[in-house]
Amino acid sequence: MRPMISSTKNPLVKRIRRLKQKKYRLQEGVFFVEGLRVVATALEMGAEVEQIVWCDDLLVSDFGRSLLLQAPATELSASVFQAISERDQPVGIGAIVKMRVTAISEQSIGEQSVFVALYEISDPGNLGTIIRTVDAAGADGVILVGNTVDPFHPSAVKASMGAVFNVAIVESSAENLLNWSKENGLSIVATSAKGSADYRAISYPKPALLLMGSEREGLPSHILQQADQAVAIPMRGTASSLNLAVATGILLYQMTTTSVVD
Amino acid sequence: MRPMISSTKNPLVKRIRRLKQKKYRLQEGVFFVEGLRVVATALEMGAEVEQIVWCDDLLVSDFGRSLLLQAPATELSASVFQAISERDQPVGIGAIVKMRVTAISEQSIGEQSVFVALYEISDPGNLGTIIRTVDAAGADGVILVGNTVDPFHPSAVKASMGAVFNVAIVESSAENLLNWSKENGLSIVATSAKGSADYRAISYPKPALLLMGSEREGLPSHILQQADQAVAIPMRGTASSLNLAVATGILLYQMTTTSVVD
Repeated sequence: MRPMISSTKNPLVKRIRRLKQKKYRLQEGVFFVEGLRVVATALEMGAEVEQIVWCDDLLVSDFGRSLLLQAPATELSASVFQAISERDQPVGIGAIVKMRVTAISEQSIGEQSVFVALYEISDPGNLGTIIRTVDAAGADGVILVGNTVDPFHPSAVKASMGAVFNVAIVESSAENLLNWSKENGLSIVATSAKGSADYRAISYPKPALLLMGSEREGLPSHILQQADQAVAIPMRGTASSLNLAVATGILLYQMTTTSVVD
Repeated sequence: MRPMISSTKNPLVKRIRRLKQKKYRLQEGVFFVEGLRVVATALEMGAEVEQIVWCDDLLVSDFGRSLLLQAPATELSASVFQAISERDQPVGIGAIVKMRVTAISEQSIGEQSVFVALYEISDPGNLGTIIRTVDAAGADGVILVGNTVDPFHPSAVKASMGAVFNVAIVESSAENLLNWSKENGLSIVATSAKGSADYRAISYPKPALLLMGSEREGLPSHILQQADQAVAIPMRGTASSLNLAVATGILLYQMTTTSVVD
């Protein structure tokens, strides 16, 4: 049994705090997650859990305690746990987990596969919510294109509700993504406000790639031109835009359920 | 012309800071918004803008400056503006705006009306995103039921992207909502994970009310029992849940576009 850590100057504690910065996550190839559900999902999905940290005063559930047997676990005092926690009411469990990112050339494709590619999106909450939606919709993966926010950012991991461990996270340049899509016969669906078909009026041959642009700029025209279909969600109000994660959800459910209902 | 405010101890500056707390917003019946688009939308939609604050060094666009003519405007020094701002890079304009909340008994209903009712939801970002979606979908209003997060919370206003000024915000008890729905012939659609129809397999008679439960608990059974239809969005992944705002967006677009496409 390892001794309890009761100082915030302990190297493990300092390391966990550093992992809140992207620079250190990339350097070490790991990220920190906090909470019962997300640690349980990491273990269940076979993620490489390098280290669990926990707190005897805070971790009350039997289920939570059963997780401590599944990976090396280090106890923290309540004040140290609170110091690393981003929650108002920490539940007393967290873990350092190895990042898993797939290169586009290694991503497998099935006949009914649907992927979501995100071009230079910037909000970690949106990214995490989209990863969660991709999991719920039973789609195949999220492809991050260009200068996109880090999927292992604490806010992205939190918004994904554990789905970051279920969903393939792929990184690619725009050029490689388009080549891969064409070589593998993916039908590319892009979203555009102008001159597009209503998303409900068309069908979506599989395998398919849904291409979403950044929150502010959408998709650049040189990428939009490579799409097989450009679709739009009708905007009927004055503000006339949807949150990126909501728009992705509406389109993804349309694409993944078409064959069942139509 | 009013003199420029260069001290954070000025009563107007203190008041704006206080308005970040719900207690003071309710006391005064106003809230503070920040940013070019949201101030412009407030003015355009005829919201009661009590006071604009702006900063000569930060507000560079001609469009932004043209807004200063449309309501009483007070200039703040750059350091004072930065002190009240919640942004990393403030654009130098904000406004104190009167809240507008409708009582359920005063809300009008059309033959094709669709309302979204939110039961005790707690996340201000979700609420703002749903208000934005209701506007984009052309639905008629958001009804806040029970102990729901404040729609004038800064994070809710920000996530609404100005739609908080376009969309009717209604408050009601659960009992009054159900009575109002039945008296006015609204078809009540509730979401439930268990024993429900696939949301794509049914039609949605209008006028309609979409009833969504809280992030953690969903809808309580005594409310679910009052619904005309219970629907579910299929969950195909392991994490098996959707973000509340994404789920609301998927259902709302299904309900509001059914008649066009089917």
